[in-house]
Amino acid sequence: MGTTQLETVPEPKYWHLKTVLSDALDSEFSVGEVLPNERELAARFGVARATLRQALEQLELEGRLQRRRGVGTTVAPPRMGVAVGPERHSWPGSGGDAWQPVDCEAGTAPAAIARVLGVSPDETVHIVRRNRMTRGQPVAAELLYVPTSAVPGGVTADVQGGTARVRAVLRELQRLDLEGQDRAVELGSARAEDAKQLDRLPGAPVLVVTTRYFALGRTVAVAVATYRADTCRLTFDEGESPRLAATGDGAYAR
Amino acid sequence: MGTTQLETVPEPKYWHLKTVLSDALDSEFSVGEVLPNERELAARFGVARATLRQALEQLELEGRLQRRRGVGTTVAPPRMGVAVGPERHSWPGSGGDAWQPVDCEAGTAPAAIARVLGVSPDETVHIVRRNRMTRGQPVAAELLYVPTSAVPGGVTADVQGGTARVRAVLRELQRLDLEGQDRAVELGSARAEDAKQLDRLPGAPVLVVTTRYFALGRTVAVAVATYRADTCRLTFDEGESPRLAATGDGAYAR
Repeated sequence: MGTTQLETVPEPKYWHLKTVLSDALDSEFSVGEVLPNERELAARFGVARATLRQALEQLELEGRLQRRRGVGTTVAPPRMGVAVGPERHSWPGSGGDAWQPVDCEAGTAPAAIARVLGVSPDETVHIVRRNRMTRGQPVAAELLYVPTSAVPGGVTADVQGGTARVRAVLRELQRLDLEGQDRAVELGSARAEDAKQLDRLPGAPVLVVTTRYFALGRTVAVAVATYRADTCRLTFDEGESPRLAATGDGAYAR
Repeated sequence: MGTTQLETVPEPKYWHLKTVLSDALDSEFSVGEVLPNERELAARFGVARATLRQALEQLELEGRLQRRRGVGTTVAPPRMGVAVGPERHSWPGSGGDAWQPVDCEAGTAPAAIARVLGVSPDETVHIVRRNRMTRGQPVAAELLYVPTSAVPGGVTADVQGGTARVRAVLRELQRLDLEGQDRAVELGSARAEDAKQLDRLPGAPVLVVTTRYFALGRTVAVAVATYRADTCRLTFDEGESPRLAATGDGAYAR
């Protein structure tokens, strides 16, 4: 978000290069354009390849550049604002939900999730996988963990097909009285399976949104949603923002 | 958040190593302990240094490891839950605010911020710097941009001292009728000045929270808060979560 300096601080060499490159992106390149290769760029700016690479990494972190397999480094479009938790008074899968069901399996939850759910690590939980698309691009992959004990009715092994099982689990959840939910956001790295869904390399930085759903006086479901950090800005609408003319995505655009 | 596999996918070598290392951290190391050096670790796990380094980078992204200047790589404590926007019905600096005033200068806003504020890039704005500490550690550095035209009364150049100027600007803001605010979270890299405040290296991954404050029918202030991504999990309390016995920080702990 800019480079305003409140006082003079020593900056590493790649940092200055980053600012210069960033200006060049604004003035000489358009969105989607492929950058010259590293050798050419290093020569043009008179820096070592290692310095150039550090600057490119920074610009990638900040969402200015994208590196894509088989394409190279391109100028990124402004990040998309993706609303997190607009359906916060309802269960996952309720009407207007932005998620598409993918698959559902019975399994065990990772230890940290089992703790949050208050179940033992070897207790069977439904593991629901859903994806979220925005403007035709995959933006998030979600795993929703629901202990089988929380939704005893209706979801049996004889429900065939991944998406049918997803719908059956969500339907059972929706029968419970939702008492509340909360959310946390943290930095993570894309697991192999999520990376595939998101068209990213495993280990790419992602924003992990963990949502806890409360019913029956306890946590009955935990969703771990992995958002692409390169293309997404997560927006939290607190239901009290007046509609201003300039509150669209473009308002944040560089 | 665990390594649940819904189907078999090929994983890069460092990914498997990451899982093995993660288990070793759980079973053999305690929080704050310094890891053996890269050469020793590579030898122990029978991998190339480059593979090891990739795995360590992943674990750092996920908040399992910390790299500190002059200390080396240590086992990180669980991330702290840091509430974002608990004061969402009030102006910055209102009672109970978690931020400490640092400094205030007159300057111009970065182009993107000027656009959000609806001012021209050369219009003078107050730039308020504040820091946030949690449990004695710096967790966030904030720049709050307020056009001088939005707070015409009282804040003059003859208010001496950084924190006095911060308070003067915030006091003027608080006289306006707050109509609402919204928030967005995205990945960024620490600018040199923020890095210094946060005790990080410039360019370290950070979570950038941008808050827009609405009054007088427009956006009158924009706060850009840079949170340490290694130590913080941002929590969003939507004011509707029932108080459960297990909703503390530890509930997410690994």
